[in-house]
Amino acid sequence: MNRFTRRNIVVALPDDTRNHLFSEQSWKRLEQCGHVLVSPAGGALAHPAATRTLADADILVTGWGTTAHGRRLRELAPRLGTLVHTAGSVRTLVDDTDFARGLTVSSQAENNARPVAEYTLAMILLSGKSVFAAQHAYRTHRGVPTGPELPAGRGLYGMRVGVVGASRIGRRVLELLRPFDVEVLLHDPYTSTEEAARLGARSTSLDDLLTHCQVVSLHAPLLDATRGMITARHLRLLPDGATFINTARGALVDQDALITELATGRIHAVLDVTEPELPEHASSLWTLPNVVLTPHTAGSAGNEVRRLGDGAVREVERLAQGRPLAHSISREQFSRTA
Amino acid sequence: MNRFTRRNIVVALPDDTRNHLFSEQSWKRLEQCGHVLVSPAGGALAHPAATRTLADADILVTGWGTTAHGRRLRELAPRLGTLVHTAGSVRTLVDDTDFARGLTVSSQAENNARPVAEYTLAMILLSGKSVFAAQHAYRTHRGVPTGPELPAGRGLYGMRVGVVGASRIGRRVLELLRPFDVEVLLHDPYTSTEEAARLGARSTSLDDLLTHCQVVSLHAPLLDATRGMITARHLRLLPDGATFINTARGALVDQDALITELATGRIHAVLDVTEPELPEHASSLWTLPNVVLTPHTAGSAGNEVRRLGDGAVREVERLAQGRPLAHSISREQFSRTA
Repeated sequence: MNRFTRRNIVVALPDDTRNHLFSEQSWKRLEQCGHVLVSPAGGALAHPAATRTLADADILVTGWGTTAHGRRLRELAPRLGTLVHTAGSVRTLVDDTDFARGLTVSSQAENNARPVAEYTLAMILLSGKSVFAAQHAYRTHRGVPTGPELPAGRGLYGMRVGVVGASRIGRRVLELLRPFDVEVLLHDPYTSTEEAARLGARSTSLDDLLTHCQVVSLHAPLLDATRGMITARHLRLLPDGATFINTARGALVDQDALITELATGRIHAVLDVTEPELPEHASSLWTLPNVVLTPHTAGSAGNEVRRLGDGAVREVERLAQGRPLAHSISREQFSRTA
Repeated sequence: MNRFTRRNIVVALPDDTRNHLFSEQSWKRLEQCGHVLVSPAGGALAHPAATRTLADADILVTGWGTTAHGRRLRELAPRLGTLVHTAGSVRTLVDDTDFARGLTVSSQAENNARPVAEYTLAMILLSGKSVFAAQHAYRTHRGVPTGPELPAGRGLYGMRVGVVGASRIGRRVLELLRPFDVEVLLHDPYTSTEEAARLGARSTSLDDLLTHCQVVSLHAPLLDATRGMITARHLRLLPDGATFINTARGALVDQDALITELATGRIHAVLDVTEPELPEHASSLWTLPNVVLTPHTAGSAGNEVRRLGDGAVREVERLAQGRPLAHSISREQFSRTA
């Protein structure tokens, strides 16, 4: 790259997030791509201390903790050509008009989907094999429980798995399920029967999916149209002993109905998210033996945050080399994701 | 197939095992392959009631609960050309001399390996992400724990996973690990560096593997040479916070040393097998928060047993069609598996 065309790459992230995202090696690679400036206001784009740095930004690197406080990116960074976001959703930073004026946006939603899909796959496999139920019974009885701990109908051979939502995470789950002897059903309003088949799944209605799957995993975005989409009636459709997995958002599900259904012991759940995000102290979700409750940990955490940093640096490298971005978001994609 | 060459297929299994193994459809397919006779003595090959049926057996279908009570198969079934075993190990039914006299042996060890590998994969993914630790802390505090629940060094991105033993199960685990961003180390005395590389792993010593892996999974056969192979010294090599997974046999590990190391809280374990098979009532394995203890449930269970029945029927179909078996065991393979 010609040094006269070196672009200004502004990194606007809280210090600890920046340190967590970028390894030393990764940061050095970023510095090969242009003139790297760390915004003195961290992730606060509207802070006066950030003004001068942002004014010259050609490329802006953002992520968790980057906020515009209601200001428009085009005012704060008028030269900006590309936003490279190290997290998933860019919704708090840009809107449709930014796409209209030609801003290029890249997000790490794809890489951020991976750990969630990996957590989901593991939970599907263990739930399908009734491992959590076996674990609980074993500890409770301190002996191999009498009776069929794993009834003849359970297990992963030919098991029906339902994926609700062909989101990035949903698609990655479908991909990860390929090596297994399971029959996958998919419900997604935007995905055709043919597209579902290409993804290795049979497209069906939400009711049919819930009625026939031993394990159901939710991967829909939280939008006005999807809030509370899983109702009491839906949960009652699940077969006895089925497991409902939610790694998406608690508010997609009628929480009272979910707790009521779980309290009967008829179904199981793996919940990485709930509504409210932290269940009330007296909530039975803390104690029900048929619930695996985890603290919103399925997403990128620990070293998985480095994958996002590495992915963002590779995007900036592509820009520097004049190659197309691997993770750009189109205006149309933006309109229908959370 | 010419009806004058229809072979006698003798099924010698306990009734409930037989019913569990074969779906109606599967049994019908078996009946297309020859003259199917159910031994009147179930799995007891040496029982007098089985004598006449076994005498005419060309193909013998065996499995869990089939026993020869020390008698030789070649005496009990002198016409026998092929043993089609619906379980993993054929060691209690045949010995080296059976191979020497030309008996063809097929086992479902490969299909039986699949559920164990699937359980293992799921446990590797969740342990690597510290999901069990997060789950425990979340329930204990009923709040998102302060401090780094998932330290920067943890997570599945670039995690080192150690597989001890390139057994059928070990190999299947290696295969299942391919879609993930993990670095896999393999220790197996019979596997060359090149072969390990083909399996997607780096070959190394047991000490090196234990020293550098965040998650270690044991897949060695229990033989005289491997009994107690994981000692107190080995367990101390594991990094702080590492997880040790055992789905093989409890007796491969010095159990007292394992319990001592776990009691410090320094490492975690996922144990589907222990020695004794059922831990003593007062064992701390029942209560330690850093132990996931399951009742030897990783292997084929529930509908996964049908996979073994289907697999065995496909073998008999191959015989009937004059095609080579998919799961025959060579004399050499027999000599070094459990």
